Amino acid sequence: MIGGRRPLRGRKIGDRRLRIARPNSAYFRYSGPGQLTARPAATLPKTTIGRVWAKVKAVAIGRPLASEEEIDERLSKTKALAVFSSDAISSSAYASEEILRILVLAGGAAVAWSLEVAIAIAILLVIVTTSYRQVCHAYPSGGGAYAVARANLGVPIALLAAAALLFDYVMTVAVSIAAGIAATTSVVPELLPYRAELAILVTILLAVANLRGLRESGNIFAIPTYLYVVGALTLIAIGLARVVTGDPSATFPVPPVAPPDGGFEALSVLLIVRAFAFGSVALSGTEAITNGVPAFKPPEPRNAANTMTAMGLLLGTIFVGLSVLAFAFGIVPDQAEKVTLIAQVSRHVYGDGVVFIVFQVVTTLILVLAANTGFNGAPRLARILALDGYVPRQFAIVGDRLAYSWGIAILAGFACLFIWVFDASVASLIPLYSIGIFLSFSISQAGMVRHWFDEQSGGWRWKLGLNLVGAVLTGVVFVVSAAAKIPNGAWIVIVVVPILVGVMLWVRRQYRGQEAELHVAAAGAISAPHRDQRIVVPMNGINRATIQALNLGRTFGSDLRAVYVTDDPDVGDALRERWARQLSDVPLVVIESPYRSFVRPLEAYLDVLDRAWPPDREAPTTIVIVPEYLGNHWWDRVLYNQTAHRLRSALAGREHTVVVDVPYRRGAEQAVAGPDAADASPGNGTGAASSE
Amino acid sequence: MIGGRRPLRGRKIGDRRLRIARPNSAYFRYSGPGQLTARPAATLPKTTIGRVWAKVKAVAIGRPLASEEEIDERLSKTKALAVFSSDAISSSAYASEEILRILVLAGGAAVAWSLEVAIAIAILLVIVTTSYRQVCHAYPSGGGAYAVARANLGVPIALLAAAALLFDYVMTVAVSIAAGIAATTSVVPELLPYRAELAILVTILLAVANLRGLRESGNIFAIPTYLYVVGALTLIAIGLARVVTGDPSATFPVPPVAPPDGGFEALSVLLIVRAFAFGSVALSGTEAITNGVPAFKPPEPRNAANTMTAMGLLLGTIFVGLSVLAFAFGIVPDQAEKVTLIAQVSRHVYGDGVVFIVFQVVTTLILVLAANTGFNGAPRLARILALDGYVPRQFAIVGDRLAYSWGIAILAGFACLFIWVFDASVASLIPLYSIGIFLSFSISQAGMVRHWFDEQSGGWRWKLGLNLVGAVLTGVVFVVSAAAKIPNGAWIVIVVVPILVGVMLWVRRQYRGQEAELHVAAAGAISAPHRDQRIVVPMNGINRATIQALNLGRTFGSDLRAVYVTDDPDVGDALRERWARQLSDVPLVVIESPYRSFVRPLEAYLDVLDRAWPPDREAPTTIVIVPEYLGNHWWDRVLYNQTAHRLRSALAGREHTVVVDVPYRRGAEQAVAGPDAADASPGNGTGAASSE
Repeated sequence: MIGGRRPLRGRKIGDRRLRIARPNSAYFRYSGPGQLTARPAATLPKTTIGRVWAKVKAVAIGRPLASEEEIDERLSKTKALAVFSSDAISSSAYASEEILRILVLAGGAAVAWSLEVAIAIAILLVIVTTSYRQVCHAYPSGGGAYAVARANLGVPIALLAAAALLFDYVMTVAVSIAAGIAATTSVVPELLPYRAELAILVTILLAVANLRGLRESGNIFAIPTYLYVVGALTLIAIGLARVVTGDPSATFPVPPVAPPDGGFEALSVLLIVRAFAFGSVALSGTEAITNGVPAFKPPEPRNAANTMTAMGLLLGTIFVGLSVLAFAFGIVPDQAEKVTLIAQVSRHVYGDGVVFIVFQVVTTLILVLAANTGFNGAPRLARILALDGYVPRQFAIVGDRLAYSWGIAILAGFACLFIWVFDASVASLIPLYSIGIFLSFSISQAGMVRHWFDEQSGGWRWKLGLNLVGAVLTGVVFVVSAAAKIPNGAWIVIVVVPILVGVMLWVRRQYRGQEAELHVAAAGAISAPHRDQRIVVPMNGINRATIQALNLGRTFGSDLRAVYVTDDPDVGDALRERWARQLSDVPLVVIESPYRSFVRPLEAYLDVLDRAWPPDREAPTTIVIVPEYLGNHWWDRVLYNQTAHRLRSALAGREHTVVVDVPYRRGAEQAVAGPDAADASPGNGTGAASSE
Repeated sequence: MIGGRRPLRGRKIGDRRLRIARPNSAYFRYSGPGQLTARPAATLPKTTIGRVWAKVKAVAIGRPLASEEEIDERLSKTKALAVFSSDAISSSAYASEEILRILVLAGGAAVAWSLEVAIAIAILLVIVTTSYRQVCHAYPSGGGAYAVARANLGVPIALLAAAALLFDYVMTVAVSIAAGIAATTSVVPELLPYRAELAILVTILLAVANLRGLRESGNIFAIPTYLYVVGALTLIAIGLARVVTGDPSATFPVPPVAPPDGGFEALSVLLIVRAFAFGSVALSGTEAITNGVPAFKPPEPRNAANTMTAMGLLLGTIFVGLSVLAFAFGIVPDQAEKVTLIAQVSRHVYGDGVVFIVFQVVTTLILVLAANTGFNGAPRLARILALDGYVPRQFAIVGDRLAYSWGIAILAGFACLFIWVFDASVASLIPLYSIGIFLSFSISQAGMVRHWFDEQSGGWRWKLGLNLVGAVLTGVVFVVSAAAKIPNGAWIVIVVVPILVGVMLWVRRQYRGQEAELHVAAAGAISAPHRDQRIVVPMNGINRATIQALNLGRTFGSDLRAVYVTDDPDVGDALRERWARQLSDVPLVVIESPYRSFVRPLEAYLDVLDRAWPPDREAPTTIVIVPEYLGNHWWDRVLYNQTAHRLRSALAGREHTVVVDVPYRRGAEQAVAGPDAADASPGNGTGAASSE
């Protein structure tokens, strides 16, 4: 197949013909007695197309990565900032807008409160990032909320954090891509009617790229983040300069606001709290760095903590700055969601030219990049949960590019669902976002409180106090924002997250039950019990496929019989006559089935065999050998082996029974040698449909 | 399982432990050496629910039928008329309407032509039924168009007839059910907006009933047909009486007709031809009796031929009678399809009372019954085609109620598709109907011409002449009606039918190729070739499932090894240490897979084994034993065996390789004896996830 065809010399182990590949095998390195280490070639695809594609991928994305290689790709602080912060920083592209969207419900004058709200959120950001700096130091191996809670608060709380995070990853993808499309449609309003379709398309493309092994370590991923940071800071600098120099357009005018359907609301504390709850989405993504501490260059915890601070400063500056500019220029969100707030500010400052367009493109890019962090985070969290047994094990299965296909596919599916249901409207999606994140923030900080209390290392009181403040504050934000957003769809989170926790606990119980059932004591030699074996070969006449199956059956034991089911006694007689001539050493049983069914009479025959066994002897193992015919095309699955498939699924789970598939492959050398007396001249067919 | 558990005494055949059930076994009758005939119990379902359901079915529908029993259920002429004629007779419920629907395009006065058109169609009916009487006599074993053409005109023409018939069966179901719903909505107009949903629901119910083994032989099926015949004839008698007695409402008034959007058309020959083409749908279903000749009581051909005549007379009378009444009362079709023509006539004659409603119910019933003939005919034709190898073989697979599940399901699927696309509008569906039927009429008659010419029996010239007239006439009707209806959707038939023929020829070529490839000469003893065997057991640690697989492997041969793939060298070392203590007689190979994939390294290992084999010796058969863990719930399919499934599909088609599934079943006695040293105490688990 792959590599040279030269036969390798083998070694004898004991008196068996066990042959191990030589050290220089293309596939394996010989790493000890009976111990092989797979080389990259061992995971290469088998088909030519697959191999060509693998080469294309190796050029475009990089060669397959071994587990040990993943950890070697350490990131500098500047690169890590780009990789881990795109999600957090990009939320500045919509957070200010969501505050104003609430405040304008009380009219243009209420917009004045946006600054206070933004500053309150910025203070929350400072506290959260400071708390998280401590997580970086305490959990240098990567301290996601699940890991911290698992270590300090027990499984149920940890699963609550995990479920909240999983939900939020879905929303990260949905909101970021919807916001990215909104940034584009602000420039190209012609695309507005297709925003949901476009968002779903981008989600699918991103999912495919991740399934194919897209990795965010490349330099290319650093560019949009820094371009956005530079563009946003420049925007704020120019804008503030205009405000300071007394530009007539920047005199904090009361913006014109059309009253909503029910008229303006009164400016109440509740409204301001709601504005805070909606704006707190700015904090989403701040936890990413704590998950990625091991990816930093040493000293990892310090570098991660400092990157955390830098991210917090940048996010806070951009978020507050944009809020100030919107307020100064009297800009309010477009209720029809045609143009984003940031696009309005940017157009106001940069004018309608190239700079404006470039900044919108950059905004779209950082938002898509932010969505990609969801595609990195969710499957990894799902894998950790799968290894712990809380989600089905296939979430831990990786491809050769370290991609967790199941996690990626399901994440993309749910993100598309939310985009479709909410028609890619950022304003509609936001209420579902950032609720889970505050729950996991709070759990994570509470876990840290317990951590410091248990450890009581130097200065633990001070650290505990800081995390306690963080836990309480984010907990309050969680409760308040969940309550404030329930009418806007947040109830979905309240319903789904506990269900997820219940399912995960249930899955774990299933796996534990299986483990206990299969458990074997670790001491004492396990010897083979003696057991009789009988071999049954159901077949459809004498042909190469069935003879191959019979020949294999002959090697399994002497208690062998071929079974032929027919609804036509004449056909059965003809077969019996031919059988006596050609295969007299194998007993043939013809079952006449006037009811024309095949599978059930065969099962009944196996029952009869079982009952005929002397009751004082242990029941034998029945080995049913099923001939199959394998073609080379997809349609061959429709044309052949239907009966074989039905038989196999009928016998699955039958007591004392194992099923052996013997494939006869079109045009290939066969699994078992064919008949000696074969005559391949066509036109003289056996008549009976083979493999049926 | 089913029946008593008492062990049966066995017989020795030769020196093998081949035991045959005793004559009085619950499952089989002993019908010769090594020959068993299945009793009904052998096809009974295995589960308790299945058996209870089987009993319910046996009461409601009848016990399972053996093939030989089917033929024993001979029908009297009166019963056969009801069974085979519902399709044909029921078409009188919409045929008159379709004629008028075309004619009114030229205004109310054009309606006068409806009688001439109806009479022309009646004459065609006479010729067709007379021709078909001859088919009954010539093909007493059932002379469908496919069978007649196959015998006389060759395969391609026969397949053309078969494809046309298959398409028409779909349309029979769609049109009959749509017309049945229309008969109901004529009484209950509130249901009109849901007619498509209702029609699809009825189609699905009918399909389910047929899948469950509904049979049309019951007396219950005769009732709607005769009720409809009586009701329609009474309607015509009363109506004609009124016409004769000079009822003022029956004075052949020119009906009021609203001009269509483009204004009235001129009354042209083309319009009258179109009216004829649309009305000729009255003939659909007339061929049914010729397919069912063997079901008649002897003398089958004569009884069938006479039933044919009776059917033609009844159909002709009702069809022409209804056309006359509509004309006499000046009734035209409702362009909005709210009330059917026959409902208008019936209401006019019977008034708005109970009789009217009962007649509509009866009309609905006969139309649903007509749809059911599609569910009987199409799967049977598909089965014949499957046995001849022109469609995939699963179309020939029968359940215990002689139901062809595949054919029924696919027929229902396409019928629902057409109902949905055409919104259950009879007027829109009609153009696709009855085109195929005239093609198969014509082919069938042409085949008879050839038959008489080849046979030249007594009076063959006369018979040949009659069939020739039939062939030419129906051929002309086919061409004319196809041409006339192409703008109304008949192009679909023109496109689909040849594609179907092409696919059937292609499928046959596939099967022929397989047969030739698997062919074994019918002479000469076939002896077992010697071939080495090696056994490979991939596993995930020491547990009951893997030990079971190893124990089976030990019986297959001595060249056995267990393979463990891991991405963690420490886990591998721990297993090796435990293995040496517990399973020292089985060589263990640990493959370290830093790329974390499982299936490909295992495949690569099998490649290495193959290459290590001395090139001068024949390659051995590799038997890969895959441990599986079987649960009892549907979710167990998600939770377990994902790796086993991926491994099996990766190895399917590998050269010299067979795959053995060894199931470990939760809570059941095991296929192979478990480990002797087993200790099932939970909590002391192997740690490694089993069966993964």
